[in-house]
Amino acid sequence: MADPSLPLPRIGVIGAGTCTSELAHAAYQVGQWIASYPATLVCGGLGGVMENAAKGAFEQGGLTVGILPTSDPGDANPYITIPIPTGMGHARNVLVVLSSQLIIAIGGQAGTLSEIAIALKLGTPIIGYRTWEIVPELKMASTIEELSTLFQQAVKSL
Amino acid sequence: MADPSLPLPRIGVIGAGTCTSELAHAAYQVGQWIASYPATLVCGGLGGVMENAAKGAFEQGGLTVGILPTSDPGDANPYITIPIPTGMGHARNVLVVLSSQLIIAIGGQAGTLSEIAIALKLGTPIIGYRTWEIVPELKMASTIEELSTLFQQAVKSL
Amino acid sequence: MADPSLPLPRIGVIGAGTCTSELAHAAYQVGQWIASYPATLVCGGLGGVMENAAKGAFEQGGLTVGILPTSDPGDANPYITIPIPTGMGHARNVLVVLSSQLIIAIGGQAGTLSEIAIALKLGTPIIGYRTWEIVPELKMASTIEELSTLFQQAVKSL
Amino acid sequence: MADPSLPLPRIGVIGAGTCTSELAHAAYQVGQWIASYPATLVCGGLGGVMENAAKGAFEQGGLTVGILPTSDPGDANPYITIPIPTGMGHARNVLVVLSSQLIIAIGGQAGTLSEIAIALKLGTPIIGYRTWEIVPELKMASTIEELSTLFQQAVKSL
Repeated sequence: MADPSLPLPRIGVIGAGTCTSELAHAAYQVGQWIASYPATLVCGGLGGVMENAAKGAFEQGGLTVGILPTSDPGDANPYITIPIPTGMGHARNVLVVLSSQLIIAIGGQAGTLSEIAIALKLGTPIIGYRTWEIVPELKMASTIEELSTLFQQAVKSL
Repeated sequence: MADPSLPLPRIGVIGAGTCTSELAHAAYQVGQWIASYPATLVCGGLGGVMENAAKGAFEQGGLTVGILPTSDPGDANPYITIPIPTGMGHARNVLVVLSSQLIIAIGGQAGTLSEIAIALKLGTPIIGYRTWEIVPELKMASTIEELSTLFQQAVKSL
Repeated sequence: MADPSLPLPRIGVIGAGTCTSELAHAAYQVGQWIASYPATLVCGGLGGVMENAAKGAFEQGGLTVGILPTSDPGDANPYITIPIPTGMGHARNVLVVLSSQLIIAIGGQAGTLSEIAIALKLGTPIIGYRTWEIVPELKMASTIEELSTLFQQAVKSL
Repeated sequence: MADPSLPLPRIGVIGAGTCTSELAHAAYQVGQWIASYPATLVCGGLGGVMENAAKGAFEQGGLTVGILPTSDPGDANPYITIPIPTGMGHARNVLVVLSSQLIIAIGGQAGTLSEIAIALKLGTPIIGYRTWEIVPELKMASTIEELSTLFQQAVKSL
């Protein structure tokens, strides 16, 4: 269990609110890696990739921050320990990125693309798995093993 | 000159804060088309594509809204008639898209990509010139003439 | 009719979304003064004080900006010529104040108090009518005539 | 030490970024009460009342969330374990209130008044110490002992 009084690094996981079981499994794994590192997981607080990543971190005893688009903390998935309801809709995507020192993008559609773009704009390091292959700065993994390797490399710089 | 008491359609122009003279010319043209339509031009209020589009609309007697990332209305370019300072940084990109019924993307980098992504997420129609070719929903023009044709088609649905 | 190509001063009117006929009348008068000055009226875009102020300005041929809490421009009252849907809920109150060079508070409850507080924080001049008498910086009028006098004095500094 | 995997209640502390030693002491005490309850402390992440409250909670082993007006997590005071940089300026005040199930206002000026107003608007319970006495819903303590009593009563409803 992480010592809550330490300001741990913060790693964001972004991806769609509904996802395939394969992406759900990848997200769960990433959540476990983040909590084990140890780091605080940051996400958008809803379902799909966000929920599975939070579940992985939660079951490893980690802290999970969910920056919600709505103003109701009850909209957070059950694995979020710290809900941040914003009532800001899509504009909350920017806060997910700003709160993260490293971003892991798993699958995802237009909402995830907006977060990737903000990360590129801010210069936040970002690694991806089955997501938008748009620029070389976004390092892509095609297997869970490759994603694990990219993750281990990326956290060295935190 | 547009009658200010009519709620005109609102058309957004997005693109980088610095740009080549070729993109500046395209943005100026688009600004003129918007004011002539007539519609209100919405943009991020700063330089480059935003300034040239606003200049085109302004010189045609049009209204120009600049939704600024800073809290200082003085940061607007000189062709903005209605500055909306937000002090929200990159999160203001979402407001530019929400305030527009049609988006025209000209060139642009990561910030523009985030706005394109939000437009796709919201289902706002979007046409592009020398910008991110990422999905078929974003109709691309490769010349000013093609852009004019796409513009004329798009405004029919406003 | 105001020339839209001039960047007019921007004056905000704040107050509750439902109001008595007496406050509605005051708001309407203030809207007329703003458009006649001429200045652009800024408000929260909804009903009550906001709608009556916008109506006063609109019927005088003025520009009316409505910075909405929702993401739907259709939520604006019918006298708003430039809707700015934000989808940000109460956080949009800050934008109403930031976009205004002078604030006129008419009646109002907790939401209006939050806007008065932001105006005090930012140093934006503010005059009030039947609203929160909390600090001397907020100059209060007890009649429409007094409000007119305070308005005439305040616009001299714009 | 609190178990981070439990979603603890969230209690916000609001007040000015610089404060007297007397208010600093009150804020420190409140921070200790919050961590001991146990609850997660939410604040604006900067100095003065925010820093002293965070210090009290931190030294008790509690979690401390700092919702910052800037986009730089390094602007958080040293007792913040979870910085949420927003880059949204004063609009972040709304997020501090939305993230809290109970608000404790200690001293404070216009910024604090804006947060009190948002809490009143949202119906969030709020107790105060040497702050804005504006409405009966804001229960005021005039001594630390009274504040402790109000705190103990208020947390029963969380």
